[in-house]
Amino acid sequence: MNIILIGAGNLMYSLAPALQHAGVNIIQVYSRTEDHASELARKLNVPFTTDLNEIEINADIYFFSLKDSILLEVAKQIKPNNALWIHTSGSIPLSSFIETHNRAGVFYPLQTFTHGREVNFEDIPIFIEANKEEDLLLLKKLGCALSPNVIELNSEKRKWLHLAAVFACNFTNHCYAIAANILEQQNLNYQYLLPLINETTNKIHNLHPKEAQTGPAIRYDTNVINKHLAMLSDPNLKELYTLLSKNINKYSTNE
Amino acid sequence: MNIILIGAGNLMYSLAPALQHAGVNIIQVYSRTEDHASELARKLNVPFTTDLNEIEINADIYFFSLKDSILLEVAKQIKPNNALWIHTSGSIPLSSFIETHNRAGVFYPLQTFTHGREVNFEDIPIFIEANKEEDLLLLKKLGCALSPNVIELNSEKRKWLHLAAVFACNFTNHCYAIAANILEQQNLNYQYLLPLINETTNKIHNLHPKEAQTGPAIRYDTNVINKHLAMLSDPNLKELYTLLSKNINKYSTNE
Repeated sequence: MNIILIGAGNLMYSLAPALQHAGVNIIQVYSRTEDHASELARKLNVPFTTDLNEIEINADIYFFSLKDSILLEVAKQIKPNNALWIHTSGSIPLSSFIETHNRAGVFYPLQTFTHGREVNFEDIPIFIEANKEEDLLLLKKLGCALSPNVIELNSEKRKWLHLAAVFACNFTNHCYAIAANILEQQNLNYQYLLPLINETTNKIHNLHPKEAQTGPAIRYDTNVINKHLAMLSDPNLKELYTLLSKNINKYSTNE
Repeated sequence: MNIILIGAGNLMYSLAPALQHAGVNIIQVYSRTEDHASELARKLNVPFTTDLNEIEINADIYFFSLKDSILLEVAKQIKPNNALWIHTSGSIPLSSFIETHNRAGVFYPLQTFTHGREVNFEDIPIFIEANKEEDLLLLKKLGCALSPNVIELNSEKRKWLHLAAVFACNFTNHCYAIAANILEQQNLNYQYLLPLINETTNKIHNLHPKEAQTGPAIRYDTNVINKHLAMLSDPNLKELYTLLSKNINKYSTNE
C-alpha cells in the first residue's frame, strides 16, 4: 500500500513517522512550502515536491492534511486517479470531498499537534469515515496500525467533536495563556500554576467536569468576583471573566 | 504546637490530614455545619464543636479556612487570645485579618481541592505571609513540613495569583464542562477528549501557553470559526466563542 502525503503541517509531521513506523509505505511528500516539504521528506527519507503537477499518480492512498481553507481547492488540482483520497479535517464533511473524488474518506485523530513534540498515537482516538465499505475497512486497518481506539463517525457528529475540541483544547490553552500573562505582569513565574493545572486535568478523569468545578463563580461569591473584575483593566478580559462566571453558575443551577 | 481548625471545607479536608501526618497536633475542629465538623474530626480522631463559644482558648495556631464572605465575621467572634491566627484565602489581604487580631498570617496552598480526592502536598506551592517575623518563620516551618515549595508572598501579589488561578483552573474546567455538554448532546462520550486534554496540559510544561496555541482562532480561520458560531444556539456560548477567539488572535499579534 503506497501513500502520498499532501501537506506537511504539524499533524502530518507527527502522523507520518507513526504511519511509516507501522509499516505503511510513504512514497512522496507534497507541500507548497519547500521548507516543510523537505523537512518532512528528510525525516521519512522519501522524495518531495512543491509542484502539484509532479505528484505521482500511482499511489493507493492520497493523504491530505491541509488547512480547511485550501483543502478543496488543492484537491481539485490533483490529477484524477482511482486511489482513495482521505483528509484529516474535523469540520470538512465527507460529502464536499466526494464532490472532487468518488473514493473519499476521513481520518481524524483527535489531538493537538505541535511541531517538535512527539505524541503517542496509541492514546489517541481516531475517527474514520468513507463512502465505500471497502475503503472504510482500509481506513480501519490503517487506524488500527496506530491506535486501538478507531471509531467510525459520520461528518455531522465529527463537526460537533471538533467544536468540543476547540473548547477543551484551544480555549483551555488560552485560559492558561491569560493566567500566565497575569502572573508575568506581576513578575511571578507562571510555572507556579502547573500543579494546579495538572490537578484540574487529572480530576476530570474520575469526575465529570460539572462536578469538578470549584472557585468563586460556582459559589457565586460576588465579593471575590467583583474584586477580580476591578483588577482586570482589559475590557475583553473583564467581559470574558463575567461571561465565564455567569455560565459556570448557569450550568450549576441547570442540574 | 497545638492547632485548632476553624472550617471543615474541601481545602481543610485535604490539608488537615497532611498536617497531622507531618506531626502537627490538631486539638479541635470547628464548623457551623455539624456534618462537616464531625466528618473531619472523625478522620483526624479529635473533638469537634459547632459552637464558636466552645472553641478552646489554649491553642498556638487558629487555622481559618472559611468562605471569604464569612471569614472576617467569624474571626471577630473568636475569644481574644495570644495565638497566631492564619487564613487560607487568596483574596483576603493580611491587613484586614490584622484588624481583628494582631498576630496574623496567611497560608495559601495553590491548588483545587475536591472532597474525596487526595492531593499530594509535596507538589503544591504554598504561599505564606505574616506581620511578625517570628510568625513568618513558624509558617515557613509549617509549610516545609508539607512541601519543598514554600514562598513568601505579600497580599497584593497573592491576589493576582488567585486571579490567575481562576483562569488556569476554574475557567479551564468550565471549558471542559462546555465541551462535555456539546458531546453529550450528540450522544458522544466526553472521555474521547481526555487524550487531547492531557496533551494540552502536558505541552505547557515545556512550551509557554502562547507558543502552544493551536486551532482555528490562532490561524484566524474564519471559515471554521463561522461554522462553529452557526452551530452554537446558546447566545452565551456564541459570545464566549467569539470573545475567546478574538482574544487568542489579539495575544498572537501582540508578540
